[in-house]
Amino acid sequence: MTLIVQKYGGSSVANAERIKAVASRIVRRLEGGDQLVVVVSAMGDTTDELIDLAHQMTDRPEAREMDLLLSTGEIVSSTLLAMTLKQLGCPAVALSGAQAGIGTDRRYGRARILKVNPHRIERELAAGNAVIVAGFQGITEEMDITTLGRGGSDTTAVALAAALGAERCEIYTDVEGIHTADPRVEPNARKLPEISYEEMLELATYGARVMHNRAVELGAVYRVPIYVASSFTDSPGTLIHGGLTMMEQRNKVMGIAHDTNVARITIRGVPDRPGIAAALFEPLGQAGISVDTIVQNASVERLTDLTFTVSRSDLNRSLEIVRPLAAGIEAPEVLADTHLAKVSIVGSGMISGPGYAGRMFRALYEAGINIELITTSEIRITCLIDAGKAAEAVRALHTAFELEQT
Amino acid sequence: MTLIVQKYGGSSVANAERIKAVASRIVRRLEGGDQLVVVVSAMGDTTDELIDLAHQMTDRPEAREMDLLLSTGEIVSSTLLAMTLKQLGCPAVALSGAQAGIGTDRRYGRARILKVNPHRIERELAAGNAVIVAGFQGITEEMDITTLGRGGSDTTAVALAAALGAERCEIYTDVEGIHTADPRVEPNARKLPEISYEEMLELATYGARVMHNRAVELGAVYRVPIYVASSFTDSPGTLIHGGLTMMEQRNKVMGIAHDTNVARITIRGVPDRPGIAAALFEPLGQAGISVDTIVQNASVERLTDLTFTVSRSDLNRSLEIVRPLAAGIEAPEVLADTHLAKVSIVGSGMISGPGYAGRMFRALYEAGINIELITTSEIRITCLIDAGKAAEAVRALHTAFELEQT
Repeated sequence: MTLIVQKYGGSSVANAERIKAVASRIVRRLEGGDQLVVVVSAMGDTTDELIDLAHQMTDRPEAREMDLLLSTGEIVSSTLLAMTLKQLGCPAVALSGAQAGIGTDRRYGRARILKVNPHRIERELAAGNAVIVAGFQGITEEMDITTLGRGGSDTTAVALAAALGAERCEIYTDVEGIHTADPRVEPNARKLPEISYEEMLELATYGARVMHNRAVELGAVYRVPIYVASSFTDSPGTLIHGGLTMMEQRNKVMGIAHDTNVARITIRGVPDRPGIAAALFEPLGQAGISVDTIVQNASVERLTDLTFTVSRSDLNRSLEIVRPLAAGIEAPEVLADTHLAKVSIVGSGMISGPGYAGRMFRALYEAGINIELITTSEIRITCLIDAGKAAEAVRALHTAFELEQT
Repeated sequence: MTLIVQKYGGSSVANAERIKAVASRIVRRLEGGDQLVVVVSAMGDTTDELIDLAHQMTDRPEAREMDLLLSTGEIVSSTLLAMTLKQLGCPAVALSGAQAGIGTDRRYGRARILKVNPHRIERELAAGNAVIVAGFQGITEEMDITTLGRGGSDTTAVALAAALGAERCEIYTDVEGIHTADPRVEPNARKLPEISYEEMLELATYGARVMHNRAVELGAVYRVPIYVASSFTDSPGTLIHGGLTMMEQRNKVMGIAHDTNVARITIRGVPDRPGIAAALFEPLGQAGISVDTIVQNASVERLTDLTFTVSRSDLNRSLEIVRPLAAGIEAPEVLADTHLAKVSIVGSGMISGPGYAGRMFRALYEAGINIELITTSEIRITCLIDAGKAAEAVRALHTAFELEQT
C-alpha cells in the first residue's frame, strides 16, 4: 500500500457541501488502495472570524491564548470531515495537532516544528483508518498549543509526509498548479507538469499564492515530492520535486515571477568603512524585517550609496530604524521609493546556459521598460522596474522566452 | 490567600460584553486577595451550533469526533476571558480540560472524571495567574478528548475545587440561587441562604435548572461547599454544604420540588417469583434509562402489578424494552400514562420530626388534588399527581409549610 499525505485548504472545506465533496474525493482515492493522512485548514474565514472575536475583547490579544483560540478552527473542520467519511462507510479518525504528534517550539503565532511523533498516526493507519489531522497547529513540550503561522497547514502536511515516509504530499487548493507566469497577468501562461524545489522557491510571491516557501523548503530538505492541484477540478496539477533528471533535461527559463510589494531605500553618503553594513542591517533583522536586495555603489572619496529593498508593508518600520542609524554615521540623506516592482526569470537550467540575462534585458528594453537595479541568484535573474510596468514586463518576458509553447 | 474555584455558565459568557462583565467581576475578586480558578462553559448557543454543524454532515456523528468538535466551544470562551483579563492588567492563563489535568474514562459524550492532575494549575497559580479552565471536557489516558455530558462544566468546577483543596466552589448562572420552590410557579418562593447537599439532590428537576445533580453529588463526597448565585446581579446566592450545625438547627421542610417530566409504566399480572424484577430492570439500566419510583402491589394468587416511573422523554424507548420482556413472562398488559407530575416536600429535618406526611396529604386533599402514588426517602416525601395540578400543588404545599415566611 502507498501512503499519501493530502492537504485541503480553507476554501476546499469552506462549508458542509465542500467538505462532502472532499470526502468523496478521499473515498475514491482510498478505493484505489492508498493509505491516506489528510491535513485540513479551518473552514473558509473561520480563522479571521476568531481573530475578530479576540479583537472585540482586547487590542492586543496575548499570543499564547490567541494560538489556543485559533487552534479550534482546524479541529472543527477535521472532526466534520472525519464524521462525513464515516457516514460514507469509510473508517476515519480526526486528530488535533497535539494528538498527531506535531511538537513545536514556544514561538506562539509562528512556531517551528521541532519533531513529529508519528506513533498515534501509524497506529490509526494500521487499524485501517483514514487519519484526518488539524493543520496549522502543534504542541510544546510544556503541553501548550501553538500555531505555525503563514503556510502552517502546508507545513504540517509536508512535515507529516517526511516523518511518515509518505510517497508524496498532495496540496489541494483553489488554483490548478504552478504556471509559467501568474495567469491573472499573462493569459497565455501554461501550467507546468513539474518544477524543482529551487525554482518553486524563486517564484516568490506568485508561488506563495499557491504554497508558502516554508513548506517547500521543508520538502526540499526531506526530499518529499509535493503535488499541487485544485480540489475543485480533476485536471492534473504540478509536481514539485528535486529529480536530477528533470533538471538536466530542461535547460531553459521555466517561468516568470513578479512582485509588486516592493519598496526601495537608499542611504546616500555612507562612510566606506568596515562594520557599517552590519550596523545597518542587524537591527532590521532583529525587527523581523527581511531585506531582499542590497546594492552598494563603488566608493567615491570613501563615501558610498547603499540601496536595498524591503516589502512595501515593512517600509515605515524600516525607515524608523534606518533614519537614526543613518544620522548616527553622518549619512546626509535617506531616500524611499515605493513605486517599484520586481520581475524575474526563473529556471534551473540558466546557470549552465549562456545568454539569458542579455535576452531578458533586451526584451525589457524593446518593451520600453527601464531597469532600475539588477540582482541574480543561481537560477534567477531579477530586475527592479517601475511598478506600473510590471504586468507588461511579465508578458514581454513570457513571449521572449517562448513560455506559451510546450 | 484563599483559593476559590468559580464557574460561569453559557449565558454568563454569551457575547463579548458579558465576557467583559465577568472579567470585571473576577478582577474585583482578585483585588480582594483571593486566588481564582475559573471554569467557563461555551458561549451562549455555541454547543448547539456545533451539534447542528455535525448534523449537516451526518445523521449519526461518531461520538469520539463529536467530543473533539464540542470541546472547541469552551476553549474559545476560556481564551477570550483570559485575554480580556490580561487587557485589564490581570495576569491570566487559559487552559483546555486536557491542560488542566482533567483525566476521564473513554465514555464519549458522558465521560466520568477519573482523576485530576492539578500540577499545571498549581504552577500557574503560584506564578500569580488567574487560571481560566475550559469546562465540560477532559482527556483519556490515550490522549483522546472527551466531554462530560449534562452538567459537565459544573462537574469540572467541583472536581477542580476538590483536587485543589479550594475553600469553596462558586457556580455563577442566570438564577439567583435556590428557592423554597420554583419562582416561576410560586411567586412567593423565598431564596434560601443555605441548603444541604442531600436537600439539593432531592430538588430533582427544579434543582437541575440551577445545577446538575452529578456536580452536587461530587461536592457531597468531597465536602466541597458550593455557592450558587447569579452572574448578572450582586444579590447573595445559596450555599450548598453539609454543615451539621445547619441541619440540626433547621427541623422542618426546606422547600417544594416538582417535576412534570414524568411517565408511569404499569405491568399487569407479573408472576411473583424471584428474579423477575431483575429481568425487567436490568435491560432498562443497560439502555441508560433511569427508573425513578418502583411500586409492587401485594401479590394476589402469585400475580402482582409492577408500577414504575421514568422521564417522559425516555417513555418510548422504555416501552420498546419492556413490552417484549412482559410478553416473555406472560404478563397480560403494559400500561403507560404520561399525564403525571411529581411534587415533593424536601427537608433534612423531616426524618426526626413527625407529622410531615400527614400535613402534606391534607394540604393536597384540601386543594382537591388526588394522590396517585406515594414514595419517600429520608428527607423527601413525593406524591405522584395529575400533571395539570402540579403548579397548584406546589403553591398549596408552599403555603401549608409556611415557606414564604423567614
